[in-house]
Amino acid sequence: MEQIKQYIEQNRERFLEELFELLRFPSVSADPKYKDSVLKTADYVAEKLKQAGADNVEVCPTAGYPIVYGEKIIDTTLPTVLVYGHYDVQPPDPLELWKTPPFEPTVRDGKIYARGACDDKGQFYMHVKAFELMMKTDTLPCNIKFMIEGEEEVGSNNLGIYVKANKERLKADVVLISDTSMISMENPSLETGLRGLSYLEVEVVGPNRDLHSGVYGGAVANPITILSKMIASLHDENNHITIPGFYDKVLVLTDEEKKALNSAPYDEEEYKTDLDVQELWGEKGYSTFERTGTRPTLEVNGIWGGYIGEGAKTVLPSKANAKISMRLVPNQTSDEITKIFTDHFEKIAPKSVKVTVTPHHGGEPVVTPTDSVAYKAAQKAITESFGKAPIPTRGGGSIPIVALFEAELGIKTVLMGFGLDSDALHSPNEKYDIFNYYKGIETLPLFHKYFAELSK
Amino acid sequence: MEQIKQYIEQNRERFLEELFELLRFPSVSADPKYKDSVLKTADYVAEKLKQAGADNVEVCPTAGYPIVYGEKIIDTTLPTVLVYGHYDVQPPDPLELWKTPPFEPTVRDGKIYARGACDDKGQFYMHVKAFELMMKTDTLPCNIKFMIEGEEEVGSNNLGIYVKANKERLKADVVLISDTSMISMENPSLETGLRGLSYLEVEVVGPNRDLHSGVYGGAVANPITILSKMIASLHDENNHITIPGFYDKVLVLTDEEKKALNSAPYDEEEYKTDLDVQELWGEKGYSTFERTGTRPTLEVNGIWGGYIGEGAKTVLPSKANAKISMRLVPNQTSDEITKIFTDHFEKIAPKSVKVTVTPHHGGEPVVTPTDSVAYKAAQKAITESFGKAPIPTRGGGSIPIVALFEAELGIKTVLMGFGLDSDALHSPNEKYDIFNYYKGIETLPLFHKYFAELSK
Repeated sequence: MEQIKQYIEQNRERFLEELFELLRFPSVSADPKYKDSVLKTADYVAEKLKQAGADNVEVCPTAGYPIVYGEKIIDTTLPTVLVYGHYDVQPPDPLELWKTPPFEPTVRDGKIYARGACDDKGQFYMHVKAFELMMKTDTLPCNIKFMIEGEEEVGSNNLGIYVKANKERLKADVVLISDTSMISMENPSLETGLRGLSYLEVEVVGPNRDLHSGVYGGAVANPITILSKMIASLHDENNHITIPGFYDKVLVLTDEEKKALNSAPYDEEEYKTDLDVQELWGEKGYSTFERTGTRPTLEVNGIWGGYIGEGAKTVLPSKANAKISMRLVPNQTSDEITKIFTDHFEKIAPKSVKVTVTPHHGGEPVVTPTDSVAYKAAQKAITESFGKAPIPTRGGGSIPIVALFEAELGIKTVLMGFGLDSDALHSPNEKYDIFNYYKGIETLPLFHKYFAELSK
Repeated sequence: MEQIKQYIEQNRERFLEELFELLRFPSVSADPKYKDSVLKTADYVAEKLKQAGADNVEVCPTAGYPIVYGEKIIDTTLPTVLVYGHYDVQPPDPLELWKTPPFEPTVRDGKIYARGACDDKGQFYMHVKAFELMMKTDTLPCNIKFMIEGEEEVGSNNLGIYVKANKERLKADVVLISDTSMISMENPSLETGLRGLSYLEVEVVGPNRDLHSGVYGGAVANPITILSKMIASLHDENNHITIPGFYDKVLVLTDEEKKALNSAPYDEEEYKTDLDVQELWGEKGYSTFERTGTRPTLEVNGIWGGYIGEGAKTVLPSKANAKISMRLVPNQTSDEITKIFTDHFEKIAPKSVKVTVTPHHGGEPVVTPTDSVAYKAAQKAITESFGKAPIPTRGGGSIPIVALFEAELGIKTVLMGFGLDSDALHSPNEKYDIFNYYKGIETLPLFHKYFAELSK
């Protein structure tokens, strides 16, 4: 432990500098106009893995963005940890809301503000530095493999193909991922589950052209009005989702699980104040933690139609669109929910419009075991570096790859996230506390140490 | 009549050329970036009025875009016709749907395609040319005044001030406007009423920042979902508007009026085919003509919120917006309906969001008399040039100025429109038939002739 702290102390500045360099790449995978930057980011990650001491580093091409692979095999009889992360980031929009430019990392009261600061550049890079630390201090206790992808924010479509094609190379005893959050630094936690995702785009077409709202208004269906009515009908008065069969396969928590989940510290007033809302909203009969961690949800991520420019235009538009995504929980499956939604949405469309539903991407929900050697190692590592045992929580987000690993490689995952819910992931002014960054670099070597010990 | 036809024949090409020149100005009043073009358009109109023979031509400045005035007083004992029109046009968006550029007038099978071709450049310019014709052939039978404004598409806010300040100068016996449409060239018609307008913008704000839909989804109100529910609630299952008091002052048609209105030729199959819709939509218990001409309506003209870029972004947005307008009928008033809507919309907002309603502009509904000298003159003129008496109809659009004239100057209006509902006003590929353009220039001198005669 002393040795770890000392090495971090000696390389403090450089560790931060390198992360800043990484954050300056606008590696937005959703928008083609950033293509070059995304590719440059992959090369940078590969370069850093080499410098840290990884062997067989390779920028593996895919049909989309490349996957960066690297490894250090010290003894094939020792256990192997596969570290997963992603170097791509969410789009920065709405740009005007950023206090400082999203791709010019800026420090304000101890926090790094930049797109990707927490999700996931700041977090996966802790592993690269922790690995460097173990190499340079000659304390690497097990084999380690890195797989850092560039399409997590757009559904990891090509990672699945890559994994299927590289089962031998990716052989490992556990997958270690830092792409989730803790309750707080005072209340360290470990996520034991993730929600799946089904993301679609819908289009509602009315008349074959934009119409004058005076000449036709009142006699022809307005696609915005119809889309609004269709969206409105997806939640009932208790905010239950009304799609037939939607909840059929939802795994119900045991009372113990409920109790454990709700034992995590939670201050509703604080929660509301942080978001500046007078009242919370959600499925009747469930707590906030249950709603975000253990219940499936449906959100409209974007909507547009008609005239959205300056001033007024009295138009009855030809069409309206929306991006809709559903978060899934065990034992729902992305394909099934996508189909159920599509059938339902087409079914509720009135004859006065034409509806098209286009699936974007999906991911499966997962629950990670809490009795595994890897989970225990994570508990020990956190307990030692934070001086407090981690609280098990359920994450609301989705990392489709976790389920994929289980299915394809038969390996379980440990989610050792060091972010905070208040880090504004996917939002303007995303941040990551410098403290958390160093804390992660300090904790990860301990995980490897205990994982190797407990695996004996 | 021969003389008229002959003069048009001799100047056919030039009449069209001049209109094309006028259509090439992108005089979009709603969008500040077109400011220079709008101003240039005013100068062009003034220049053409002078050339046609008008006196005291002036580009009158206002707080917004100028009003072009011109007159020809041949004998103060003769009646005076005040011609109103507007040289501004609607925004051209969505641009990608135009077959040819909106501001490069193009002729395809006898139709002029351009923004403003029908609304209202093509129509008000007929008056300028008809005036030229009467001047050059020395057949002007009465006094004539022109008032062509540049803010009709954004609510004519400054015209009201101008009218109040120039009552003497604008003294006239009738207002003549060509900014409406006929059923068809085979079924000429005269509009005897116009709907009023109340145009607003609403904003629904949820959390104070965009949120990760996985981390917060299901626990915080999504402003898009809430806005959709609020919009959906504005129409009931019979498509009646649910705002309390909305219909209180609506003037109910007499059976005769209903009969006359529905006597106009109407082919529902044709109507549906033209719009490519399987089924029409509207207030239960009313025909299409009643819905668009005599009943108040509520349309969402635009909606936007969340991520509307390429690809997928799993965001729970901070806010959602919509542009909403209501068409009013006698005896509703714009201010009252704006207030009723605002109160209702704020009232139905759940505590989980904050709602703001911002009024854009409004206009009052009108019904024009069918027993006036001016109306009879219009009937005679159309009957002579079309060889068929015009059918009285109710227009669904709004020309706020009509009510203003009545209130401020005590003058009634005659709506002699030569457009067609299929001219795609406010839509991509707006058009105006060349035939209608010349037909108008041919009919208008007849109106002046009969108006002068019948006024004796």
